[in-house]
Amino acid sequence: MPDAPEVKAATSNGIPPPSFNLPLPDKPEIITANVQKLTEQTPNPRHKFIFKALIKHLHQFVNETSLTTDEWMAAIDFLTRTGQKCTPLRQETILLSDVLGVSALVDSLNNPVAGGATENSVLGPFFTEDAAEVDFGESIASEGKGDYMYVEGRILTTDGQPIPNAVIETWETDADGFYDTQYADRSYPDCRGRLRSGDDGRFGYRAVVPVAYPIPGDGPVGELLLLLGRHNMRPNHLHMMVEAPGFHKLVTAFYPDGCKYLESDCVFGVKKSLVVSLKDIVDEEEARKRGFPHGRSFKLLQYDIVLLTEAQSAKMRDGVDQERCIITEDHKKF
Amino acid sequence: MPDAPEVKAATSNGIPPPSFNLPLPDKPEIITANVQKLTEQTPNPRHKFIFKALIKHLHQFVNETSLTTDEWMAAIDFLTRTGQKCTPLRQETILLSDVLGVSALVDSLNNPVAGGATENSVLGPFFTEDAAEVDFGESIASEGKGDYMYVEGRILTTDGQPIPNAVIETWETDADGFYDTQYADRSYPDCRGRLRSGDDGRFGYRAVVPVAYPIPGDGPVGELLLLLGRHNMRPNHLHMMVEAPGFHKLVTAFYPDGCKYLESDCVFGVKKSLVVSLKDIVDEEEARKRGFPHGRSFKLLQYDIVLLTEAQSAKMRDGVDQERCIITEDHKKF
Repeated sequence: MPDAPEVKAATSNGIPPPSFNLPLPDKPEIITANVQKLTEQTPNPRHKFIFKALIKHLHQFVNETSLTTDEWMAAIDFLTRTGQKCTPLRQETILLSDVLGVSALVDSLNNPVAGGATENSVLGPFFTEDAAEVDFGESIASEGKGDYMYVEGRILTTDGQPIPNAVIETWETDADGFYDTQYADRSYPDCRGRLRSGDDGRFGYRAVVPVAYPIPGDGPVGELLLLLGRHNMRPNHLHMMVEAPGFHKLVTAFYPDGCKYLESDCVFGVKKSLVVSLKDIVDEEEARKRGFPHGRSFKLLQYDIVLLTEAQSAKMRDGVDQERCIITEDHKKF
Repeated sequence: MPDAPEVKAATSNGIPPPSFNLPLPDKPEIITANVQKLTEQTPNPRHKFIFKALIKHLHQFVNETSLTTDEWMAAIDFLTRTGQKCTPLRQETILLSDVLGVSALVDSLNNPVAGGATENSVLGPFFTEDAAEVDFGESIASEGKGDYMYVEGRILTTDGQPIPNAVIETWETDADGFYDTQYADRSYPDCRGRLRSGDDGRFGYRAVVPVAYPIPGDGPVGELLLLLGRHNMRPNHLHMMVEAPGFHKLVTAFYPDGCKYLESDCVFGVKKSLVVSLKDIVDEEEARKRGFPHGRSFKLLQYDIVLLTEAQSAKMRDGVDQERCIITEDHKKF
């Protein structure tokens, strides 16, 4: 037999064993207690708080379900495949968080509003930076992409004052349920645009009625929804993102009522305050006046968007932070 | 602008929206309640039970920590990188489960023993199928791989009767803390062997004293341990896997006492009953008799391994299964 290869002996990460004693486990509870005791060593207080909570809930979950070894292995395999399904263009781990309602809960806890300010909704994976500038009354969709919809409203402060010159990014599916980025041969942005509110805070643009669409069903999350007996549809919606100097950036979406997937949105993005009624305008003259080439009729979406100032938003989020365990500057590094 | 590409409209996974009503969320609690209500549709009762528990604990975790959007994003990134670090030769997701004590807890709950039967320990990633057959008293390690250790004992029933012809797989690190598979130029199995108990249930073989070693530190789990202020070391141990017809397969390991990482094993694999005392035999003649080429002294590991019959094991596991919610045959498919 040849000599062993010349190697450096395996070495640790440099952290010594703890100075306190830990009992050798002779029953499952001791394992859990030891993990928690080791976690006490975490230098950052916020990290310690988070991981103690995580370990508590993970172990309670295993105990309450008496999770079998086969089930644990299935979970390992599922999480591994979820990570491996991710690419620069697809984030399956976020999708998993979405369908379990975790993303919506985090969003809801982190974006408290008051004073009639418009609520947040999930950004989603379909925003792009390259939307064309669209003037007041112009269209974000090329002709033939769907049924006509006109969107109008005002950008306001919580006091009802108009916010002029706010930048509005808006995007939506076409009538087939696809965003432009989902077409392999996308050669220009479509069903999306960038516009600005006028001096009176008003905005208005032509669009199409968005339609419901499925989240990707060809990965682990698609399998999971089948296992849970759940559809994989999002109700139709129109995205809007609004920015104005001095105001807190708003990422939101509006959900027309009547969609059969509205209440059971597979990613739980719908909020009650973001559900809108589209008015049915059957008026040839009005349609022509609004600039719809084929006239006849269109849907009208009217919504006044209320922004929090940066100061108002910071104050609201401070309220949340105070409820959190110790927040330190570097807790965000993880 | 060109015509839109010809496409089929986006379609769902075929599952209709639920027949019951769900309220539109106007506060975070409604989101959680809606996720749980949708989960009621899960066809398989065991899956339903598991996912309701999972969602409960995930949402409680987010609520109790008031998890920030940045922290949530860090968790998404961490889980994604964990999945992506996995290869056919490396399972980072299992490693994550290991360092959080989840693997040890699952193992402990799923392998109850009684009647003095030897306890399970984690299989780990270093077992291979290609170990050489080793006769009674022969060595599993090539000369120069470490300090001499002789391992001996009996394979017994819970009644103390010998179990002859049991197949024993055993493997360990060399004195540098590496398994043979960790050397890029591995040309034959080393520090591992396959042997059989004799008619009296006895086994005996030469080995080396294993040494403590780190789990991989160059991935997300390595980062996590640094964040938690924890070392990444496993105490030294000798793996043994024992199979005999009619008996429940045992996967275990023995941990010599005195190792400074024994109580704080980074993967929580140590069990009190698996800690052994190595005897120090300083006796030239005894060393020569045992077949150690350089004589002088050796360590002696003595342990009688007690196996459950398949019937005993099935009975114990039935006890666990009865505590589980409904178990169905197809719940293991996920």
